[in-house]
Amino acid sequence: MELFKRVDEVRTWSRRTRAAGLTVGFVPTMGFLHEGHLSLMRQAREKCDRVAASIFVNPMQFGPKEDLAAYPRDLDRDLERMSSVPVDVVFHPDPEEVYPPGYQTRVEVTDVTRDLCGRYRPGHFTGVATVVLKLFHIVEPDLAIFGEKDYQQLVTIKRMARDLNLDVRVEGGVTVREPDGLAMSSRNTYLSGEERKSARALSSSLGLARDMVAAGQRDPARIIEAVRRHIEDHPHTRVEYAELVDPETMQAVDRIGPRTLLVLSVHVGRARLIDNAVLTAS
Amino acid sequence: MELFKRVDEVRTWSRRTRAAGLTVGFVPTMGFLHEGHLSLMRQAREKCDRVAASIFVNPMQFGPKEDLAAYPRDLDRDLERMSSVPVDVVFHPDPEEVYPPGYQTRVEVTDVTRDLCGRYRPGHFTGVATVVLKLFHIVEPDLAIFGEKDYQQLVTIKRMARDLNLDVRVEGGVTVREPDGLAMSSRNTYLSGEERKSARALSSSLGLARDMVAAGQRDPARIIEAVRRHIEDHPHTRVEYAELVDPETMQAVDRIGPRTLLVLSVHVGRARLIDNAVLTAS
Repeated sequence: MELFKRVDEVRTWSRRTRAAGLTVGFVPTMGFLHEGHLSLMRQAREKCDRVAASIFVNPMQFGPKEDLAAYPRDLDRDLERMSSVPVDVVFHPDPEEVYPPGYQTRVEVTDVTRDLCGRYRPGHFTGVATVVLKLFHIVEPDLAIFGEKDYQQLVTIKRMARDLNLDVRVEGGVTVREPDGLAMSSRNTYLSGEERKSARALSSSLGLARDMVAAGQRDPARIIEAVRRHIEDHPHTRVEYAELVDPETMQAVDRIGPRTLLVLSVHVGRARLIDNAVLTAS
Repeated sequence: MELFKRVDEVRTWSRRTRAAGLTVGFVPTMGFLHEGHLSLMRQAREKCDRVAASIFVNPMQFGPKEDLAAYPRDLDRDLERMSSVPVDVVFHPDPEEVYPPGYQTRVEVTDVTRDLCGRYRPGHFTGVATVVLKLFHIVEPDLAIFGEKDYQQLVTIKRMARDLNLDVRVEGGVTVREPDGLAMSSRNTYLSGEERKSARALSSSLGLARDMVAAGQRDPARIIEAVRRHIEDHPHTRVEYAELVDPETMQAVDRIGPRTLLVLSVHVGRARLIDNAVLTAS
Protein backbone atom coordinates (compact mmCIF):
# COMPACT_ATOMS: atom_id res chain seq x y z
CA MET A 1 0.00 0.00 0.00
CA GLU A 2 1.43 3.37 -1.03
CA LEU A 3 0.83 6.59 0.87
CA PHE A 4 0.97 9.79 -1.21
CA LYS A 5 0.80 13.33 0.10
CA ARG A 6 1.20 15.16 -3.20
CA VAL A 7 -1.18 15.62 -6.11
CA ASP A 8 1.41 14.79 -8.77
CA GLU A 9 2.29 11.48 -7.07
CA VAL A 10 -1.32 10.25 -7.19
CA ARG A 11 -1.79 11.46 -10.73
CA THR A 12 1.35 9.70 -11.91
CA TRP A 13 0.23 6.46 -10.26
CA SER A 14 -3.27 6.73 -11.74
CA ARG A 15 -2.00 7.51 -15.26
CA ARG A 16 0.40 4.62 -15.16
CA THR A 17 -2.31 2.28 -13.86
CA ARG A 18 -4.83 3.23 -16.52
CA ALA A 19 -2.17 3.21 -19.25
CA ALA A 20 -1.60 -0.44 -18.29
CA GLY A 21 -5.28 -1.07 -19.02
CA LEU A 22 -6.31 -1.37 -15.36
CA THR A 23 -9.39 0.27 -13.86
CA VAL A 24 -9.26 2.48 -10.77
CA GLY A 25 -11.90 2.52 -8.03
CA PHE A 26 -11.87 5.44 -5.60
CA VAL A 27 -13.30 6.02 -2.12
CA PRO A 28 -12.90 9.56 -0.73
CA THR A 29 -13.09 9.75 3.08
CA MET A 30 -12.32 12.06 5.98
CA GLY A 31 -10.54 9.22 7.79
CA PHE A 32 -11.19 7.74 11.26
CA LEU A 33 -12.34 4.75 9.28
CA HIS A 34 -15.02 2.32 10.39
CA GLU A 35 -16.65 -0.73 8.79
CA GLY A 36 -18.82 1.58 6.67
CA HIS A 37 -15.79 3.04 4.92
CA LEU A 38 -14.13 -0.35 4.59
CA SER A 39 -17.21 -1.85 2.96
CA LEU A 40 -17.05 0.90 0.30
CA MET A 41 -13.40 0.07 -0.31
CA ARG A 42 -14.19 -3.63 -0.63
CA GLN A 43 -16.96 -2.72 -3.09
CA ALA A 44 -14.37 -0.80 -5.14
CA ARG A 45 -11.99 -3.75 -4.85
CA GLU A 46 -14.62 -6.11 -6.30
CA LYS A 47 -15.40 -3.86 -9.24
CA CYS A 48 -12.00 -2.43 -10.18
CA ASP A 49 -8.45 -3.64 -10.69
CA ARG A 50 -6.94 -1.09 -8.34
CA VAL A 51 -8.33 0.84 -5.36
CA ALA A 52 -7.41 4.34 -4.23
CA ALA A 53 -8.78 6.01 -1.11
CA SER A 54 -8.28 9.51 0.20
CA ILE A 55 -8.12 10.68 3.78
CA PHE A 56 -8.67 14.40 3.96
CA VAL A 57 -10.63 16.34 6.56
CA ASN A 58 -11.84 18.99 4.13
CA PRO A 59 -12.01 22.41 5.82
CA MET A 60 -14.24 23.78 3.05
CA GLN A 61 -17.19 21.58 4.02
CA PHE A 62 -17.25 22.64 7.69
CA GLY A 63 -19.15 25.71 8.85
CA PRO A 64 -17.41 28.24 11.11
CA LYS A 65 -19.23 26.84 14.17
CA GLU A 66 -18.79 23.19 13.25
CA ASP A 67 -16.43 20.48 14.48
CA LEU A 68 -13.47 20.84 12.09
CA ALA A 69 -10.86 21.02 14.87
CA ALA A 70 -12.55 18.31 16.96
CA TYR A 71 -13.14 15.93 14.06
CA PRO A 72 -11.48 12.62 15.10
CA ARG A 73 -8.26 11.58 13.35
CA ASP A 74 -6.12 8.43 13.61
CA LEU A 75 -3.98 7.89 10.52
CA ASP A 76 -2.05 4.88 11.80
CA ARG A 77 -5.19 2.96 12.60
CA ASP A 78 -6.71 4.04 9.25
CA LEU A 79 -3.70 2.71 7.32
CA GLU A 80 -3.85 -0.58 9.18
CA ARG A 81 -7.54 -0.98 8.43
CA MET A 82 -7.10 -0.10 4.76
CA SER A 83 -4.29 -2.61 4.35
CA SER A 84 -6.82 -5.33 5.24
CA VAL A 85 -9.03 -4.51 2.22
CA PRO A 86 -6.44 -4.13 0.63
CA VAL A 87 -6.30 -0.59 -0.71
CA ASP A 88 -3.49 0.09 -3.20
CA VAL A 89 -3.01 3.82 -2.81
CA VAL A 90 -3.89 6.27 -0.04
CA PHE A 91 -3.93 9.99 -0.80
CA HIS A 92 -3.49 11.99 2.39
CA PRO A 93 -2.67 15.58 1.43
CA ASP A 94 -2.06 18.54 3.68
CA PRO A 95 -4.72 21.28 3.45
CA GLU A 96 -2.27 23.58 1.60
CA GLU A 97 -1.75 20.95 -1.08
CA VAL A 98 -5.49 21.00 -1.76
CA TYR A 99 -6.10 24.72 -1.19
CA PRO A 100 -2.88 26.61 -1.92
CA PRO A 101 -2.65 30.37 -1.33
CA GLY A 102 -4.87 32.26 -3.77
CA TYR A 103 -7.33 29.37 -4.07
CA GLN A 104 -10.80 30.74 -5.00
CA THR A 105 -12.96 28.26 -6.93
CA ARG A 106 -16.24 26.70 -5.75
CA VAL A 107 -18.61 24.19 -7.28
CA GLU A 108 -22.24 24.49 -6.34
CA VAL A 109 -25.03 22.01 -7.02
CA THR A 110 -28.14 24.04 -6.33
CA ASP A 111 -31.51 22.27 -6.15
CA VAL A 112 -30.72 18.95 -4.45
CA THR A 113 -28.68 20.72 -1.74
CA ARG A 114 -31.27 23.37 -0.87
CA ASP A 115 -33.12 21.50 1.90
CA LEU A 116 -32.29 18.98 4.63
CA CYS A 117 -28.58 19.12 5.58
CA GLY A 118 -28.12 21.92 3.05
CA ARG A 119 -30.50 24.13 5.01
CA TYR A 120 -28.77 23.52 8.35
CA ARG A 121 -25.20 23.48 7.04
CA PRO A 122 -24.91 26.42 4.61
CA GLY A 123 -21.95 25.93 2.26
CA HIS A 124 -21.44 22.31 3.32
CA PHE A 125 -22.35 20.71 -0.01
CA THR A 126 -20.44 23.35 -1.94
CA GLY A 127 -17.37 22.28 0.07
CA VAL A 128 -18.13 18.63 -0.61
CA ALA A 129 -18.77 19.07 -4.35
CA THR A 130 -15.64 21.19 -4.76
CA VAL A 131 -13.25 18.81 -3.01
CA VAL A 132 -14.76 15.76 -4.71
CA LEU A 133 -14.41 17.36 -8.14
CA LYS A 134 -10.77 18.17 -7.35
CA LEU A 135 -10.17 14.60 -6.14
CA PHE A 136 -11.78 13.24 -9.31
CA HIS A 137 -9.43 15.40 -11.39
CA ILE A 138 -6.45 14.22 -9.37
CA VAL A 139 -7.26 10.50 -9.14
CA GLU A 140 -9.15 10.20 -12.44
CA PRO A 141 -11.02 7.10 -11.26
CA ASP A 142 -13.30 4.92 -13.37
CA LEU A 143 -15.62 4.38 -10.40
CA ALA A 144 -16.15 6.35 -7.19
CA ILE A 145 -18.16 5.05 -4.24
CA PHE A 146 -19.98 7.07 -1.57
CA GLY A 147 -21.93 5.76 1.41
CA GLU A 148 -25.72 5.84 1.29
CA LYS A 149 -25.73 6.98 4.92
CA ASP A 150 -24.91 10.43 3.52
CA TYR A 151 -27.68 10.13 0.98
CA GLN A 152 -27.97 13.82 0.07
CA GLN A 153 -24.21 13.89 -0.50
CA LEU A 154 -24.44 10.87 -2.81
CA VAL A 155 -27.25 12.50 -4.81
CA THR A 156 -25.26 15.75 -4.99
CA ILE A 157 -22.15 14.03 -6.34
CA LYS A 158 -24.15 12.02 -8.87
CA ARG A 159 -25.84 15.21 -10.05
CA MET A 160 -22.52 17.07 -10.30
CA ALA A 161 -20.92 14.24 -12.25
CA ARG A 162 -23.77 14.20 -14.74
CA ASP A 163 -24.07 18.00 -15.00
CA LEU A 164 -20.33 18.53 -15.53
CA ASN A 165 -19.94 15.67 -18.04
CA LEU A 166 -17.52 13.83 -15.80
CA ASP A 167 -16.41 10.46 -17.02
CA VAL A 168 -16.65 8.84 -13.57
CA ARG A 169 -19.27 6.29 -12.54
CA VAL A 170 -20.66 7.26 -9.11
CA GLU A 171 -22.15 4.50 -7.02
CA GLY A 172 -23.66 4.24 -3.53
CA GLY A 173 -22.68 1.70 -0.88
CA VAL A 174 -25.18 0.41 1.69
CA THR A 175 -25.05 1.76 5.22
CA VAL A 176 -23.23 -0.47 7.69
CA ARG A 177 -24.78 -0.60 11.16
CA GLU A 178 -23.79 -1.51 14.70
CA PRO A 179 -25.51 -4.62 16.11
CA ASP A 180 -28.24 -2.43 17.65
CA GLY A 181 -28.90 -0.64 14.35
CA LEU A 182 -26.96 2.61 14.80
CA ALA A 183 -25.46 3.66 11.47
CA MET A 184 -21.69 3.70 11.65
CA SER A 185 -20.23 7.20 11.67
CA SER A 186 -16.94 8.73 12.73
CA ARG A 187 -19.03 11.15 14.79
CA ASN A 188 -20.45 8.33 16.95
CA THR A 189 -17.26 8.77 18.94
CA TYR A 190 -18.75 11.99 20.35
CA LEU A 191 -21.48 10.01 22.19
CA SER A 192 -21.34 9.38 25.93
CA GLY A 193 -22.65 6.03 27.26
CA GLU A 194 -26.20 7.28 27.80
CA GLU A 195 -26.31 9.20 24.55
CA ARG A 196 -25.11 6.10 22.73
CA LYS A 197 -28.20 4.27 23.99
CA SER A 198 -30.50 7.06 22.83
CA ALA A 199 -28.81 7.12 19.43
CA ARG A 200 -30.51 3.81 18.67
CA ALA A 201 -33.70 5.80 18.24
CA LEU A 202 -32.66 6.96 14.74
CA SER A 203 -32.54 3.50 13.21
CA SER A 204 -35.46 2.17 15.23
CA SER A 205 -37.58 5.07 13.99
CA LEU A 206 -36.76 4.04 10.42
CA GLY A 207 -38.14 0.59 11.27
CA LEU A 208 -41.24 2.17 12.75
CA ALA A 209 -41.81 4.17 9.55
CA ARG A 210 -41.32 1.05 7.44
CA ASP A 211 -43.95 -0.75 9.53
CA MET A 212 -46.42 2.11 9.13
CA VAL A 213 -46.01 2.07 5.34
CA ALA A 214 -46.34 -1.73 5.29
CA ALA A 215 -49.60 -1.29 7.24
CA GLY A 216 -50.89 1.05 4.54
CA GLN A 217 -50.05 4.50 5.86
CA ARG A 218 -49.43 6.88 2.95
CA ASP A 219 -49.60 10.27 4.67
CA PRO A 220 -46.10 11.75 5.19
CA ALA A 221 -47.26 14.02 8.05
CA ARG A 222 -48.48 11.04 10.11
CA ILE A 223 -45.26 9.12 9.59
CA ILE A 224 -43.05 12.10 10.38
CA GLU A 225 -45.04 12.84 13.53
CA ALA A 226 -44.61 9.26 14.76
CA VAL A 227 -40.89 9.27 13.92
CA ARG A 228 -40.29 12.55 15.75
CA ARG A 229 -42.21 11.40 18.81
CA HIS A 230 -40.36 8.09 18.87
CA ILE A 231 -36.96 9.78 18.73
CA GLU A 232 -37.70 12.54 21.20
CA ASP A 233 -39.01 9.99 23.71
CA HIS A 234 -35.32 9.13 24.13
CA PRO A 235 -33.25 11.41 26.41
CA HIS A 236 -30.58 13.79 25.03
CA THR A 237 -32.15 13.88 21.55
CA ARG A 238 -33.34 16.82 19.48
CA VAL A 239 -34.66 16.24 15.96
CA GLU A 240 -33.16 18.75 13.51
CA TYR A 241 -35.23 17.46 10.63
CA ALA A 242 -37.26 14.40 9.69
CA GLU A 243 -38.62 14.44 6.15
CA LEU A 244 -40.01 12.23 3.43
CA VAL A 245 -38.52 13.14 0.07
CA ASP A 246 -38.13 11.97 -3.49
CA PRO A 247 -34.78 10.10 -3.56
CA GLU A 248 -33.74 11.74 -6.87
CA THR A 249 -34.70 15.38 -6.29
CA MET A 250 -34.57 15.44 -2.46
CA GLN A 251 -37.84 17.42 -2.52
CA ALA A 252 -40.57 16.70 0.05
CA VAL A 253 -43.40 14.46 -1.18
CA ASP A 254 -47.04 14.89 -0.24
CA ARG A 255 -47.83 11.21 -0.43
CA ILE A 256 -45.79 8.01 0.00
CA GLY A 257 -44.99 6.69 -3.48
CA PRO A 258 -43.32 3.49 -4.68
CA ARG A 259 -39.92 4.76 -3.48
CA THR A 260 -39.77 7.46 -0.84
CA LEU A 261 -36.72 8.41 1.20
CA LEU A 262 -37.06 9.05 4.91
CA VAL A 263 -34.19 11.28 6.03
CA LEU A 264 -33.29 12.19 9.60
CA SER A 265 -30.92 14.53 11.33
CA VAL A 266 -30.84 14.34 15.12
CA HIS A 267 -28.68 16.02 17.71
CA VAL A 268 -27.74 13.50 20.39
CA GLY A 269 -25.67 15.22 23.04
CA ARG A 270 -23.01 17.13 21.11
CA ALA A 271 -23.16 14.75 18.14
CA ARG A 272 -25.25 15.52 15.08
CA LEU A 273 -26.25 12.18 13.57
CA ILE A 274 -27.97 11.45 10.27
CA ASP A 275 -29.66 8.37 8.93
CA ASN A 276 -32.12 7.42 6.19
CA ALA A 277 -34.07 4.61 4.62
CA VAL A 278 -35.87 4.10 1.35
CA LEU A 279 -39.50 3.20 2.06
CA THR A 280 -41.20 1.17 -0.62
CA ALA A 281 -44.96 1.06 -1.05
CA SER A 282 -46.58 -1.26 -3.53
CA MET B 1 -13.52 18.85 -40.92
CA GLU B 2 -16.07 17.01 -38.81
CA LEU B 3 -19.11 18.71 -37.24
CA PHE B 4 -20.41 17.11 -34.04
CA LYS B 5 -23.58 18.07 -32.18
CA ARG B 6 -23.41 15.46 -29.43
CA VAL B 7 -21.15 15.17 -26.39
CA ASP B 8 -20.39 11.47 -26.92
CA GLU B 9 -19.28 12.07 -30.53
CA VAL B 10 -16.65 14.62 -29.49
CA ARG B 11 -15.50 12.50 -26.59
CA THR B 12 -15.08 9.45 -28.82
CA TRP B 13 -13.06 11.46 -31.32
CA SER B 14 -10.87 12.97 -28.59
CA ARG B 15 -10.24 9.61 -26.90
CA ARG B 16 -9.32 8.00 -30.17
CA THR B 17 -7.03 10.90 -31.07
CA ARG B 18 -5.16 10.87 -27.78
CA ALA B 19 -5.00 7.06 -27.73
CA ALA B 20 -3.11 7.39 -31.04
CA GLY B 21 -0.57 9.55 -29.24
CA LEU B 22 -1.74 12.83 -30.78
CA THR B 23 -2.27 16.06 -28.84
CA VAL B 24 -5.51 18.05 -28.96
CA GLY B 25 -5.72 21.84 -28.98
CA PHE B 26 -9.06 23.44 -28.24
CA VAL B 27 -10.60 26.87 -28.89
CA PRO B 28 -14.04 27.47 -27.38
CA THR B 29 -16.04 30.22 -29.10
CA MET B 30 -19.55 31.62 -29.39
CA GLY B 31 -19.24 31.65 -33.17
CA PHE B 32 -19.63 34.56 -35.64
CA LEU B 33 -15.93 34.08 -36.12
CA HIS B 34 -13.48 36.83 -37.00
CA GLU B 35 -9.71 36.97 -37.43
CA GLY B 36 -9.28 37.00 -33.65
CA HIS B 37 -10.86 33.58 -33.29
CA LEU B 38 -9.02 32.23 -36.32
CA SER B 39 -5.67 33.37 -34.94
CA LEU B 40 -6.37 31.34 -31.76
CA MET B 41 -7.17 28.31 -33.90
CA ARG B 42 -3.96 28.76 -35.88
CA GLN B 43 -2.07 29.02 -32.58
CA ALA B 44 -3.63 25.69 -31.51
CA ARG B 45 -2.73 24.25 -34.92
CA GLU B 46 0.91 25.20 -34.45
CA LYS B 47 1.16 23.68 -30.99
CA CYS B 48 -0.98 20.55 -31.25
CA ASP B 49 -1.49 17.65 -33.66
CA ARG B 50 -5.24 18.14 -33.86
CA VAL B 51 -7.51 21.16 -33.35
CA ALA B 52 -11.04 21.19 -31.98
CA ALA B 53 -13.21 24.30 -31.72
CA SER B 54 -16.64 24.77 -30.25
CA ILE B 55 -19.39 27.11 -31.36
CA PHE B 56 -21.91 27.55 -28.59
CA VAL B 57 -23.73 30.73 -27.59
CA ASN B 58 -23.84 29.86 -23.90
CA PRO B 59 -27.11 31.08 -22.33
CA MET B 60 -25.65 30.75 -18.80
CA GLN B 61 -23.17 33.59 -19.34
CA PHE B 62 -25.76 36.14 -20.45
CA GLY B 63 -27.70 38.24 -17.94
CA PRO B 64 -31.50 38.51 -18.27
CA LYS B 65 -31.20 41.96 -19.88
CA GLU B 66 -28.28 41.09 -22.15
CA ASP B 67 -28.04 40.30 -25.85
CA LEU B 68 -28.47 36.49 -25.88
CA ALA B 69 -31.22 36.53 -28.52
CA ALA B 70 -29.54 39.24 -30.59
CA TYR B 71 -26.06 37.72 -30.44
CA PRO B 72 -24.96 37.31 -34.07
CA ARG B 73 -24.82 33.80 -35.55
CA ASP B 74 -23.68 32.50 -38.95
CA LEU B 75 -22.72 28.83 -38.84
CA ASP B 76 -22.10 28.38 -42.57
CA ARG B 77 -19.65 31.23 -42.69
CA ASP B 78 -18.01 29.99 -39.47
CA LEU B 79 -17.49 26.53 -40.93
CA GLU B 80 -15.98 27.97 -44.07
CA ARG B 81 -13.58 30.13 -42.08
CA MET B 82 -12.54 27.27 -39.82
CA SER B 83 -11.82 25.01 -42.78
CA SER B 84 -9.14 27.51 -43.83
CA VAL B 85 -7.16 27.00 -40.60
CA PRO B 86 -7.85 24.03 -40.82
CA VAL B 87 -9.80 22.93 -37.75
CA ASP B 88 -10.32 19.16 -37.45
CA VAL B 89 -13.44 19.01 -35.32
CA VAL B 90 -16.21 21.51 -34.60
CA PHE B 91 -18.48 20.94 -31.61
CA HIS B 92 -21.78 22.77 -32.10
CA PRO B 93 -24.26 21.44 -29.53
CA ASP B 94 -27.85 22.48 -28.97
CA PRO B 95 -28.46 24.20 -25.61
CA GLU B 96 -30.35 21.10 -24.32
CA GLU B 97 -27.30 18.93 -25.02
CA VAL B 98 -25.25 21.17 -22.73
CA TYR B 99 -27.94 21.93 -20.14
CA PRO B 100 -30.45 19.05 -20.09
CA PRO B 101 -33.58 19.22 -17.92
CA GLY B 102 -32.68 19.10 -14.22
CA TYR B 103 -29.29 20.75 -14.80
CA GLN B 104 -28.19 22.58 -11.62
CA THR B 105 -24.40 22.85 -11.24
CA ARG B 106 -22.34 26.06 -11.24
CA VAL B 107 -18.64 26.79 -11.00
CA GLU B 108 -17.64 30.05 -9.43
CA VAL B 109 -14.20 31.64 -9.37
CA THR B 110 -14.59 34.33 -6.74
CA ASP B 111 -11.82 36.91 -6.33
CA VAL B 112 -10.65 37.58 -9.89
CA THR B 113 -14.26 37.94 -11.09
CA ARG B 114 -15.41 40.35 -8.40
CA ASP B 115 -14.60 43.63 -10.16
CA LEU B 116 -14.55 44.98 -13.73
CA CYS B 117 -16.87 42.96 -16.01
CA GLY B 118 -17.82 40.81 -13.01
CA ARG B 119 -19.30 43.83 -11.28
CA TYR B 120 -21.36 44.90 -14.29
CA ARG B 121 -22.34 41.44 -15.47
CA PRO B 122 -23.37 39.48 -12.34
CA GLY B 123 -23.20 35.74 -12.97
CA HIS B 124 -21.37 36.17 -16.28
CA PHE B 125 -18.09 34.56 -15.23
CA THR B 126 -19.90 31.78 -13.39
CA GLY B 127 -21.58 30.98 -16.70
CA VAL B 128 -18.24 31.14 -18.51
CA ALA B 129 -16.36 29.01 -15.95
CA THR B 130 -19.14 26.42 -15.88
CA VAL B 131 -19.42 25.96 -19.63
CA VAL B 132 -15.65 25.94 -20.10
CA LEU B 133 -15.22 23.28 -17.41
CA LYS B 134 -17.90 21.19 -19.12
CA LEU B 135 -16.22 21.66 -22.50
CA PHE B 136 -12.87 20.67 -21.00
CA HIS B 137 -14.46 17.48 -19.64
CA ILE B 138 -16.03 16.75 -23.02
CA VAL B 139 -13.08 17.56 -25.29
CA GLU B 140 -10.28 16.68 -22.82
CA PRO B 141 -7.78 18.88 -24.63
CA ASP B 142 -4.07 19.14 -23.88
CA LEU B 143 -4.11 22.86 -24.60
CA ALA B 144 -6.92 25.43 -24.61
CA ILE B 145 -6.55 28.94 -26.01
CA PHE B 146 -8.52 32.05 -25.06
CA GLY B 147 -8.17 35.54 -26.48
CA GLU B 148 -6.41 38.19 -24.43
CA LYS B 149 -9.08 40.67 -25.50
CA ASP B 150 -11.26 39.05 -22.81
CA TYR B 151 -8.45 39.31 -20.31
CA GLN B 152 -10.52 38.82 -17.16
CA GLN B 153 -12.03 35.71 -18.72
CA LEU B 154 -8.55 34.34 -19.51
CA VAL B 155 -7.41 34.95 -15.92
CA THR B 156 -10.61 33.33 -14.60
CA ILE B 157 -10.12 30.18 -16.68
CA LYS B 158 -6.45 29.93 -15.75
CA ARG B 159 -7.37 30.28 -12.09
CA MET B 160 -10.12 27.66 -12.37
CA ALA B 161 -7.83 25.21 -14.13
CA ARG B 162 -5.22 25.57 -11.42
CA ASP B 163 -7.69 25.51 -8.51
CA LEU B 164 -9.54 22.45 -9.77
CA ASN B 165 -6.36 20.49 -10.66
CA LEU B 166 -7.31 20.33 -14.33
CA ASP B 167 -4.76 18.77 -16.58
CA VAL B 168 -5.24 21.34 -19.36
CA ARG B 169 -2.72 23.99 -20.31
CA VAL B 170 -4.50 27.33 -20.70
CA GLU B 171 -2.87 29.91 -22.93
CA GLY B 172 -3.76 33.41 -24.11
CA GLY B 173 -3.74 34.58 -27.72
CA VAL B 174 -2.94 38.18 -28.66
CA THR B 175 -5.76 40.52 -29.61
CA VAL B 176 -6.26 40.94 -33.34
CA ARG B 177 -7.21 44.46 -34.42
CA GLU B 178 -8.82 46.21 -37.37
CA PRO B 179 -6.48 48.50 -39.37
CA ASP B 180 -7.57 51.50 -37.24
CA GLY B 181 -6.87 49.64 -33.98
CA LEU B 182 -10.38 48.50 -32.98
CA ALA B 183 -10.13 45.09 -31.29
CA MET B 184 -12.02 42.48 -33.29
CA SER B 185 -15.24 41.37 -31.62
CA SER B 186 -18.41 39.69 -32.78
CA ARG B 187 -20.23 42.57 -31.10
CA ASN B 188 -18.64 45.16 -33.43
CA THR B 189 -21.46 44.23 -35.77
CA TYR B 190 -23.81 46.23 -33.51
CA LEU B 191 -22.04 49.50 -34.43
CA SER B 192 -23.53 52.01 -36.86
CA GLY B 193 -21.19 53.93 -39.17
CA GLU B 194 -20.70 56.86 -36.78
CA GLU B 195 -20.39 54.63 -33.73
CA ARG B 196 -17.79 52.58 -35.54
CA LYS B 197 -15.66 55.72 -35.89
CA SER B 198 -16.01 56.52 -32.19
CA ALA B 199 -15.12 52.93 -31.26
CA ARG B 200 -11.54 53.71 -32.31
CA ALA B 201 -11.29 55.66 -29.06
CA LEU B 202 -10.82 52.48 -27.01
CA SER B 203 -7.60 51.39 -28.68
CA SER B 204 -6.30 54.92 -29.16
CA SER B 205 -6.78 55.55 -25.43
CA LEU B 206 -4.60 52.51 -24.73
CA GLY B 207 -1.90 54.15 -26.83
CA LEU B 208 -2.36 57.38 -24.92
CA ALA B 209 -1.89 55.55 -21.61
CA ARG B 210 1.20 53.81 -22.94
CA ASP B 211 2.68 57.18 -23.92
CA MET B 212 1.96 58.62 -20.47
CA VAL B 213 3.72 55.71 -18.76
CA ALA B 214 6.65 56.00 -21.18
CA ALA B 215 6.87 59.69 -20.23
CA GLY B 216 7.15 58.70 -16.56
CA GLN B 217 3.58 58.95 -15.30
CA ARG B 218 3.06 56.41 -12.47
CA ASP B 219 -0.18 57.66 -10.93
CA PRO B 220 -3.17 55.47 -11.94
CA ALA B 221 -5.70 58.23 -11.27
CA ARG B 222 -4.02 60.61 -13.75
CA ILE B 223 -3.89 57.98 -16.46
CA ILE B 224 -7.48 56.86 -15.92
CA GLU B 225 -8.67 60.44 -16.01
CA ALA B 226 -6.92 61.06 -19.33
CA VAL B 227 -8.23 57.81 -20.80
CA ARG B 228 -11.81 58.54 -19.77
CA ARG B 229 -11.64 62.08 -21.13
CA HIS B 230 -10.14 60.87 -24.42
CA ILE B 231 -12.88 58.28 -24.92
CA GLU B 232 -15.78 60.47 -23.89
CA ASP B 233 -14.61 63.21 -26.28
CA HIS B 234 -15.92 60.85 -28.98
CA PRO B 235 -19.69 60.90 -29.63
CA HIS B 236 -21.97 57.95 -28.65
CA THR B 237 -19.53 56.68 -25.99
CA ARG B 238 -20.04 56.04 -22.30
CA VAL B 239 -17.22 54.57 -20.22
CA GLU B 240 -18.49 51.76 -17.99
CA TYR B 241 -15.13 51.27 -16.34
CA ALA B 242 -11.48 52.16 -16.94
CA GLU B 243 -9.09 50.69 -14.41
CA LEU B 244 -5.46 49.85 -13.83
CA VAL B 245 -5.10 46.44 -12.24
CA ASP B 246 -2.64 43.71 -11.43
CA PRO B 247 -2.80 41.28 -14.38
CA GLU B 248 -2.79 38.23 -12.08
CA THR B 249 -5.28 39.24 -9.38
CA MET B 250 -7.33 41.79 -11.35
CA GLN B 251 -7.18 44.08 -8.30
CA ALA B 252 -6.71 47.83 -8.72
CA VAL B 253 -3.15 49.07 -8.21
CA ASP B 254 -2.23 52.33 -6.52
CA ARG B 255 0.91 52.84 -8.58
CA ILE B 256 2.04 51.74 -12.03
CA GLY B 257 4.39 48.79 -11.57
CA PRO B 258 6.55 46.83 -14.03
CA ARG B 259 3.42 45.16 -15.49
CA THR B 260 0.06 46.82 -15.07
CA LEU B 261 -3.09 46.01 -17.00
CA LEU B 262 -5.28 48.82 -18.30
CA VAL B 263 -8.80 47.48 -18.78
CA LEU B 264 -11.69 49.27 -20.45
CA SER B 265 -15.37 48.72 -20.94
CA VAL B 266 -17.21 51.27 -23.04
CA HIS B 267 -20.74 51.48 -24.31
CA VAL B 268 -20.73 52.70 -27.90
CA GLY B 269 -24.28 52.99 -29.12
CA ARG B 270 -25.92 49.71 -28.18
CA ALA B 271 -22.62 47.82 -28.23
CA ARG B 272 -20.65 47.19 -25.06
CA LEU B 273 -17.00 46.94 -26.08
CA ILE B 274 -13.99 45.91 -24.01
CA ASP B 275 -10.28 46.27 -24.59
CA ASN B 276 -7.07 46.17 -22.59
CA ALA B 277 -3.33 46.56 -22.74
CA VAL B 278 -0.45 45.60 -20.48
CA LEU B 279 1.54 48.72 -19.62
CA THR B 280 5.16 48.15 -18.79
CA ALA B 281 7.23 50.55 -16.71
CA SER B 282 10.92 50.04 -16.22
